[in-house]
Amino acid sequence: MGHERPNIARMHGYTPGKQPATSDTIKLNTNENPYPPSPAVMRALQNIAPEALRRYPEPSAERFRTLAAQTHGVSPEQIVAVNGGDELLRMAITTFVEPGAPIGVVEPSYSLYPVLAEIHGSPVVSVPARADFCAPEDFAEHMNAAKVQLALLVNPHAPSGHLTGRAQLSKLAAALDGVLLIDEAYVDFVDPALGHDLLPMLREHDNLLFLRTLSKGYSLAGLRFGYGIGCQSLIAPLMGKTRDSYNVDVVAQALAEAALADRAVAADSWQRVRDERARVTTELRTLGCRVPDSQSNFVLAELPAKSPKARELLLLLETRGVLVRHFAQERLHDSLRITIGTPAQNDRLLGLLRELL
Amino acid sequence: MGHERPNIARMHGYTPGKQPATSDTIKLNTNENPYPPSPAVMRALQNIAPEALRRYPEPSAERFRTLAAQTHGVSPEQIVAVNGGDELLRMAITTFVEPGAPIGVVEPSYSLYPVLAEIHGSPVVSVPARADFCAPEDFAEHMNAAKVQLALLVNPHAPSGHLTGRAQLSKLAAALDGVLLIDEAYVDFVDPALGHDLLPMLREHDNLLFLRTLSKGYSLAGLRFGYGIGCQSLIAPLMGKTRDSYNVDVVAQALAEAALADRAVAADSWQRVRDERARVTTELRTLGCRVPDSQSNFVLAELPAKSPKARELLLLLETRGVLVRHFAQERLHDSLRITIGTPAQNDRLLGLLRELL
Repeated sequence: MGHERPNIARMHGYTPGKQPATSDTIKLNTNENPYPPSPAVMRALQNIAPEALRRYPEPSAERFRTLAAQTHGVSPEQIVAVNGGDELLRMAITTFVEPGAPIGVVEPSYSLYPVLAEIHGSPVVSVPARADFCAPEDFAEHMNAAKVQLALLVNPHAPSGHLTGRAQLSKLAAALDGVLLIDEAYVDFVDPALGHDLLPMLREHDNLLFLRTLSKGYSLAGLRFGYGIGCQSLIAPLMGKTRDSYNVDVVAQALAEAALADRAVAADSWQRVRDERARVTTELRTLGCRVPDSQSNFVLAELPAKSPKARELLLLLETRGVLVRHFAQERLHDSLRITIGTPAQNDRLLGLLRELL
Repeated sequence: MGHERPNIARMHGYTPGKQPATSDTIKLNTNENPYPPSPAVMRALQNIAPEALRRYPEPSAERFRTLAAQTHGVSPEQIVAVNGGDELLRMAITTFVEPGAPIGVVEPSYSLYPVLAEIHGSPVVSVPARADFCAPEDFAEHMNAAKVQLALLVNPHAPSGHLTGRAQLSKLAAALDGVLLIDEAYVDFVDPALGHDLLPMLREHDNLLFLRTLSKGYSLAGLRFGYGIGCQSLIAPLMGKTRDSYNVDVVAQALAEAALADRAVAADSWQRVRDERARVTTELRTLGCRVPDSQSNFVLAELPAKSPKARELLLLLETRGVLVRHFAQERLHDSLRITIGTPAQNDRLLGLLRELL
């Protein structure tokens, strides 16, 4: 008999996407940005002194938080830096959810959410997404009826890329009794012509927490750096109580500062991804796939009925050196999630699909 | 009314030691190694490629774990890499302790333990240390009676530096029903002449977890990298279930590998710290302080009766540019914990104490 808690013994862990050791594989499976981080980030790396490594880091990542606050027009007390966005999800659960109390999600959604709930010993209250993958209009009512203390919504939605606008989310936040965490991991890839900006909602609701990450938008998945933006009353216990005292290291802090200060380089990659997203979507549709409009750096392709099964196609693509992602979840069995790569990578994928579909 | 859980609302967070922005302060307050990390670590930093930052890191830190396993004569399945030793403490609590179930400690001890217990909603069962700061002989019996699922012992003890030997700890592990986490954050500074090595205990007990960190021994406090060594049955749920999927970043993994591979440089710093520890201990005793023998990179100095109060003395030292640590805990009110610095830093501290005591 093991020493772990019964819920831990029972559960299955999260399965991260494959990270092959060789670099000649085309990785369209984990939503990395296909373009490198800013040269300013590399300069910051070169400038790390032995003395900075020897000492403990500044525990609250104050310089980064000040910079992020300026970038987003909020106060530093509304920012918390985390060791990758996943850490904010865990910290929010630890802080706002009694062990055993339910956690709310839309189904399908980011597959880590139910894993974190299981670790916490919490049941998941899931509401099916609408046909367009948006949260249903009565989401908050469902959550309140189940006494959900924290609801996790990813927007743009994963794995579909569907974007829900401010009006609907504002109604949802107002109606929700618990905390609403809006996971904006992919928000950098939203078309700027849409004028999408949810942060002004912070002035209207006291139960809102946004998750941001440098993993995708800033090409820094290897660095593990994200941050939360939220009402000060929600950020304070995360910052001062439940966070590991030195959760973000000195290298990550310095590189994150450099990345955010040089946003233009990142923004250029976002536009290139958007251009390719439009092209890949069109091509996939031409091949008979059903592809929801995506505002993210991936698309969800539902395969045509006569094609090989999604899981089988994924393995065929893998033998040809292209990785994509499949989720054995309701509504996703027949779909592949495909990260937008460089034009050449996307060409390779589309060429293979033309052959295999 | 806030959204945080009642136990979170009630609790006070952990207070990390001061991290001054200026580097002319003599920092003898947070147990950093006074010598820089190995040049091999700096070379590894220079060699980080943009591509490594762009991609997700290898999720299980496999190369580091293989190297650590070789170093310690265990298997890679007995190693888990963590974002600083504190993360292992949190993960052990999450994995092995039902929320609300008690966590066992010796008092006084590392002041983070009760904070982590509070976050978990768990009461702390604390047993007073013996006069020499060792766990009492009947520690396991106390823990079993209280149904403790996880006991946290730091050895060498903090903040005294007292070392408990294998015979006593082996008896304790055998008698304990729950998991025993032995926090060896400072073990690198133990005098090698003592032949101290607890790892063979892993072959005799199935409830043992050791915490190691590169923060002190390898001069990498800024990097946040630690690891657990334990029975495979305890490491497996930490690795596969409760750990954040990408908890250690690509830079930390590369630098940690370089540090462990170049152990000789670190070992040289350990010997220099030991030499100075002996000298500082002798000098403090000459000044009338009571100083337990320390096998760590700090000493605990109980001030002579006629001296200024410890807290007052700490502030006086601070105005003169030397930081030390004080804990407002039972048995520690009249003591200062002083990290062993370079000979020049120690001279400066001792000179000030000669003046102020």
